[in-house]
Amino acid sequence: MEKIVALCKRRGFIYPGSEIYGGLTGTWDYGPLGSELKRNIKNEWWKSMVGLRSDVVGIDAAIMMNPQVWRSSGHLEAFTDPLVECLVCHQRFRADKREEIAGHENSHKAEGLPAGRQVEWTSPKKFNLLVEAELGVVEGEKQKVYLRGEITQGAFVNFENVVSSNRVKIPFGIAQIGKAFRNEITPGNFTYRSREFEQMELEFFVRPEKEEGDKWFDYWKKERLEWYKSLGLTESKLRFRKHEDSERAHYAKYAEDIEFEAPFGWSEFEGIHHRGDWDLSRHKLGYMDDQGQKFTPWVIETSGGVDRSALFFLLNAYQDDSKRVWLKLHPRLAPYKVAVFPLLANKQELVEKARSIYDSLKPSFMTAWDDRGNIGKRYLSQDEAGTPWCVTVDFQTLEDDTVTVRDRDTAEQERVKVSELAAFVAKKLE
Amino acid sequence: MEKIVALCKRRGFIYPGSEIYGGLTGTWDYGPLGSELKRNIKNEWWKSMVGLRSDVVGIDAAIMMNPQVWRSSGHLEAFTDPLVECLVCHQRFRADKREEIAGHENSHKAEGLPAGRQVEWTSPKKFNLLVEAELGVVEGEKQKVYLRGEITQGAFVNFENVVSSNRVKIPFGIAQIGKAFRNEITPGNFTYRSREFEQMELEFFVRPEKEEGDKWFDYWKKERLEWYKSLGLTESKLRFRKHEDSERAHYAKYAEDIEFEAPFGWSEFEGIHHRGDWDLSRHKLGYMDDQGQKFTPWVIETSGGVDRSALFFLLNAYQDDSKRVWLKLHPRLAPYKVAVFPLLANKQELVEKARSIYDSLKPSFMTAWDDRGNIGKRYLSQDEAGTPWCVTVDFQTLEDDTVTVRDRDTAEQERVKVSELAAFVAKKLE
Repeated sequence: MEKIVALCKRRGFIYPGSEIYGGLTGTWDYGPLGSELKRNIKNEWWKSMVGLRSDVVGIDAAIMMNPQVWRSSGHLEAFTDPLVECLVCHQRFRADKREEIAGHENSHKAEGLPAGRQVEWTSPKKFNLLVEAELGVVEGEKQKVYLRGEITQGAFVNFENVVSSNRVKIPFGIAQIGKAFRNEITPGNFTYRSREFEQMELEFFVRPEKEEGDKWFDYWKKERLEWYKSLGLTESKLRFRKHEDSERAHYAKYAEDIEFEAPFGWSEFEGIHHRGDWDLSRHKLGYMDDQGQKFTPWVIETSGGVDRSALFFLLNAYQDDSKRVWLKLHPRLAPYKVAVFPLLANKQELVEKARSIYDSLKPSFMTAWDDRGNIGKRYLSQDEAGTPWCVTVDFQTLEDDTVTVRDRDTAEQERVKVSELAAFVAKKLE
Repeated sequence: MEKIVALCKRRGFIYPGSEIYGGLTGTWDYGPLGSELKRNIKNEWWKSMVGLRSDVVGIDAAIMMNPQVWRSSGHLEAFTDPLVECLVCHQRFRADKREEIAGHENSHKAEGLPAGRQVEWTSPKKFNLLVEAELGVVEGEKQKVYLRGEITQGAFVNFENVVSSNRVKIPFGIAQIGKAFRNEITPGNFTYRSREFEQMELEFFVRPEKEEGDKWFDYWKKERLEWYKSLGLTESKLRFRKHEDSERAHYAKYAEDIEFEAPFGWSEFEGIHHRGDWDLSRHKLGYMDDQGQKFTPWVIETSGGVDRSALFFLLNAYQDDSKRVWLKLHPRLAPYKVAVFPLLANKQELVEKARSIYDSLKPSFMTAWDDRGNIGKRYLSQDEAGTPWCVTVDFQTLEDDTVTVRDRDTAEQERVKVSELAAFVAKKLE
């Protein structure tokens, strides 16, 4: 874990937020490589959920919503964590995080407590996770609003708008990507639990019938797991975990998480939720089918964390064979697809030729350039960035118009004609 | 303007935020067509600013920042609008918006004021535009933070991280797209002045020399104007406007706006700002070049509004020749690139053939499907959505494997071989 955190900072994947001012708990900034990785994850998701499907449309709703949304959705009342307070130091912890509580008790014991004294805790109190903000112009008359605690509600409050403007028919889905905010009690594990984070969510509306609900729940469970596997997450590090009755969110009839085996344990990064008619009922929204039958659709939701996915793609990709470190990212997720080097930086013919290849690839692929140090160091540098292919222009290039293409994972090299280079990369990306 | 607002709602470009609960002033939700338009604008911008350039890298910083960022940047002190209050009704207006103030006075006069009474105003008071939020877990001990009022600062506070992790050399730029929030006093003109909005910004760092600053300022002015023109904004509706000394933001040495001639007057939607060393100095950041010379770079900023651009692309694209209404959006910005229709929805062979064409185009292009009503109505529907090409599968298709491709702008039709359809669309999009 420390290795990934250090690599992320050193290579520009992820920096602590507001770092020069001591940071801001639970916020993270994505650097040049990290912002490309995140873009790629989001674009792949959008393509699979919206572009390739005929039963899903996308929307992009505002972060600020009328507070009535959160009243109706039940979040003002029930979007809470049970909190206990340590009576020794007054730090607060989630009552359901037994390991963190035990760890905290042990740290007090290690520091040394007065003879015979135990660490004592308050009884659990409810704490609402919604972040409050103030909108408006007149001091003292500002409106209290909540930053959305889940992007989901945007799909529900726009349900009728989407139906009437797009003539979609049930079953259909609304997809969305965007930021959400929560006053998480114990942000931690790098970007895993943050106060500001990005979600990619599908709300899929089906007829309110048990068979339909079950069918689509199973369908989306499979689809989502397959998606992560298709982008390179190792199957043995993935599992489903069914929510116990006691841990289900207030809106969920039934829920299963997709978990990844992180260095800090099996950890949820996407939830498949059967929300039933909870949300549409609470918002007093309904649907009429072609036969004139009115009903309140049920919702099957797939709710993925963009930041958590990015973290797990990185952790899963990290490879170290003691000779080199490389990120075995799926090529479609890799920040740069290809890097171009002139063998020698002081040979103008090589530099010019390499530059022309670089310029020709750039319109189609994120392409890196490197002319520092020797080729070996450049390979190591691109390995750490997860760049799948490195192209070297050498003296042979000037004779036969071929280049060396070196594969990130095998470290093997092959000669490819310059005229076929773009097609070579495009084919590999398919 | 009313026509565009109505079309946006009806066809699913833009809905009022939280509409089912009476809205939330200054927030807007993008529907299925609008979210694709916005995605396309952002992707085109990112490609032109990051993908195609070797002197710009992207980042993605958090919306929540340590409050010290805003203290250092001068925003806590100076990110203010001068406000006057109407003594008749206590509504507040920006003191520099003379037309709005005159309009308000006239509305009072029209309602009728007591004999001899004039509309009186308070003297202007400063009002800070930053939106406050509360972070943290302990009631009464929460930390007051500000939602970023400009995405810019993320590039400055990460300046050293970016330099050290990416070995970029001056002149170079940091590009970013993301949401910002302002307590705008008078949100209005549809999405034009909102409290939540998205920015696309470049901070370009140059040597602190007058010639360098001037050169890059002029360079970016030209680049940015060209970009909007290349995506279809009409040249005669675009102009530069230089900021007067009195209206320049606190950080700007020099500033020019790109304005569009909207129905509500010439309106800024991108600013080119010479920020000098304001930000890096305030954050106590510097740079050392290869010769070991230390200095504080100057910054040339291009700051574009994604929502404003989207609105102006829509306004500029709106066409009405009394026979039909169509959106002449640049094909790369159009939500759907192509729509596929079976001539008759009840002829299974036509539907199956059309469906196979639809399925074959979808992986490469956002593709719409329509089998309702007659072909004429489907054309009108796609015209309003801005879809550049409509493909109809008819009986001739079953004989010679050609389809009709109808052009949105000319309404002309040509026969294209099914096997060449994808290449036909791809070529037009280049």
